[in-house]
Amino acid sequence: MKKPKIVTIGGGSGTFVVLSGLKKYPVTLQAVVSMMDSGGSTGRLRDQLGVLPPGDMRQALIALSDSEDIWRSLFTYRFDTGDLGGHNFGNIFLSALEKITGSAEESIVHAAKLLKIKGNVIPVTSSKCTLCAKYADGSLLEGETLIDESLTSRPKILYMYTLPEAVPNPKAIKSILKADYIVFGPGDLYTSIFPNLLIPGIVDALKASKAKKVFFVNLMTKLGQTDGFKASDFVNEMERYAGCMMDYIFVNNQNPPTDLIEWYKKSSNVDLIEDDLNQSTHDKNRIIRADLLSESKYEQSIADRIRRSLIRHDPEKVSKAFIENLNIEL
Amino acid sequence: MKKPKIVTIGGGSGTFVVLSGLKKYPVTLQAVVSMMDSGGSTGRLRDQLGVLPPGDMRQALIALSDSEDIWRSLFTYRFDTGDLGGHNFGNIFLSALEKITGSAEESIVHAAKLLKIKGNVIPVTSSKCTLCAKYADGSLLEGETLIDESLTSRPKILYMYTLPEAVPNPKAIKSILKADYIVFGPGDLYTSIFPNLLIPGIVDALKASKAKKVFFVNLMTKLGQTDGFKASDFVNEMERYAGCMMDYIFVNNQNPPTDLIEWYKKSSNVDLIEDDLNQSTHDKNRIIRADLLSESKYEQSIADRIRRSLIRHDPEKVSKAFIENLNIEL
Repeated sequence: MKKPKIVTIGGGSGTFVVLSGLKKYPVTLQAVVSMMDSGGSTGRLRDQLGVLPPGDMRQALIALSDSEDIWRSLFTYRFDTGDLGGHNFGNIFLSALEKITGSAEESIVHAAKLLKIKGNVIPVTSSKCTLCAKYADGSLLEGETLIDESLTSRPKILYMYTLPEAVPNPKAIKSILKADYIVFGPGDLYTSIFPNLLIPGIVDALKASKAKKVFFVNLMTKLGQTDGFKASDFVNEMERYAGCMMDYIFVNNQNPPTDLIEWYKKSSNVDLIEDDLNQSTHDKNRIIRADLLSESKYEQSIADRIRRSLIRHDPEKVSKAFIENLNIEL
Repeated sequence: MKKPKIVTIGGGSGTFVVLSGLKKYPVTLQAVVSMMDSGGSTGRLRDQLGVLPPGDMRQALIALSDSEDIWRSLFTYRFDTGDLGGHNFGNIFLSALEKITGSAEESIVHAAKLLKIKGNVIPVTSSKCTLCAKYADGSLLEGETLIDESLTSRPKILYMYTLPEAVPNPKAIKSILKADYIVFGPGDLYTSIFPNLLIPGIVDALKASKAKKVFFVNLMTKLGQTDGFKASDFVNEMERYAGCMMDYIFVNNQNPPTDLIEWYKKSSNVDLIEDDLNQSTHDKNRIIRADLLSESKYEQSIADRIRRSLIRHDPEKVSKAFIENLNIEL
């Protein structure tokens, strides 16, 4: 029997969770990742060296890695002082390889060999472009990191686009067309998932693909992006940008500790996402509720971004729920 | 028949030449390398991250590498702009590994695996120490890079020492004691070769070792270190620091192009080393004269330091002369 082909579309820590959980199953994994990160170590390397942003590729590579701990530790290592202060080694590694080979895709090939990855990491585009967001009050932000990192709530994002228009990676299109399952989320809608969908050709491929589309609703809102969003808002926005309906919608039904929610509210102005999907007009059969919550307390995770979230999805629970509820034969 | 055990003692581009030539022969190679580099990318990483200086380890690793070109290219890649500007990727790689594993030696183990090295690279010490030189006019310099990089000629170096006194790497002692041949040079006497000999225990091991000691005399003097030195001066200083006689002394007998020598004189205040060994009191039987000169014009070499020398030793000629003249059975 052929292994089911699963394609994730995203970037960042949400994709990391799904990939690192699913890699333990006999499935074929392909991670289509966003190439618009402009903050932190990634942003500096992009600006200073003219490379494509390595951050999302790096996280997907680590998630799929089956190599000795040392290489995964190396790829997540962050220098804390001096010229290299704040830079992540994996980002430096991918940047040097891109400078030598002239291509981000080729840099992935070599990193993949070192990290013994199970599956493929596919940059959604090789175009150097900037993510832009138009808000309900008419304001405009250019740059992924400006959109991503907000200290206050913001008006609703009306629409997004890239400058200039990007050229899609044919491998991304192909992976979508040949997929059995396409997984969106969890993750930041506007800065991790949708940047992939803004690339011309991707939405058409999604529409044409016979793959089942699966969406994992986030656990918490995000300040300045999804303030006040309920689960139905996540689903609606997801479907609007994807240009197609989701076949399965996963929602966590486990409550995080109240004190943690309160702490989040006070410290970060974010809130637990309310599951209003029964009251919405959505087809209830496609909604799957399960305990998807990570029980681990704060720990230094291998994906350094995950450290930022105390309330987060659990890779094992997510992948188990996915395999079991979709009746995927393995 | 057991493979002959050859130990090089040095660092920098001279050691690179010997190792990259000899690795093509069926011999066992061990490179004992200096750990006192304090300049450039290596010096900055050492100062800013508190790691041991990676530069000499890196060059020896690349010299012994039998891996695909891409990994050797990566290890020699130097970033030219931004935060990473001037830093060599190999140095960054070794530094990150040392930070993760807590040991320079362990970082070599992992890098050696990636680079598929033929042989061993052995840091002469794990002590963090500073190279110091006392000059004939009573002046004193502390720091390898200050001693190494001079814009003017200087008084003769009377003696050298390290601050604080270093602890030898037992593996370096062992390799010397078990060697069949120990190769010194070519390379900077005071900043590449002798820093190894200042580590307590190394000279005693050299005296106790039954290995044949082999010395390659340099081609050119070095400004501020060996101004006006003739071949006999090189041999005398070498034997003074090693505490033992050299069994074989290799001297190049091929003349570089006159215009190149003139260019060197004018631009760098250095000169071709005069072979005065017949007039000196040295045992003439141990002197081996051969064409050791590289014919290649300026090219971007894999060892970036070699680029600096247009008049330099040729790896193939050096290793061939070594194997043939010493009648090493392979």
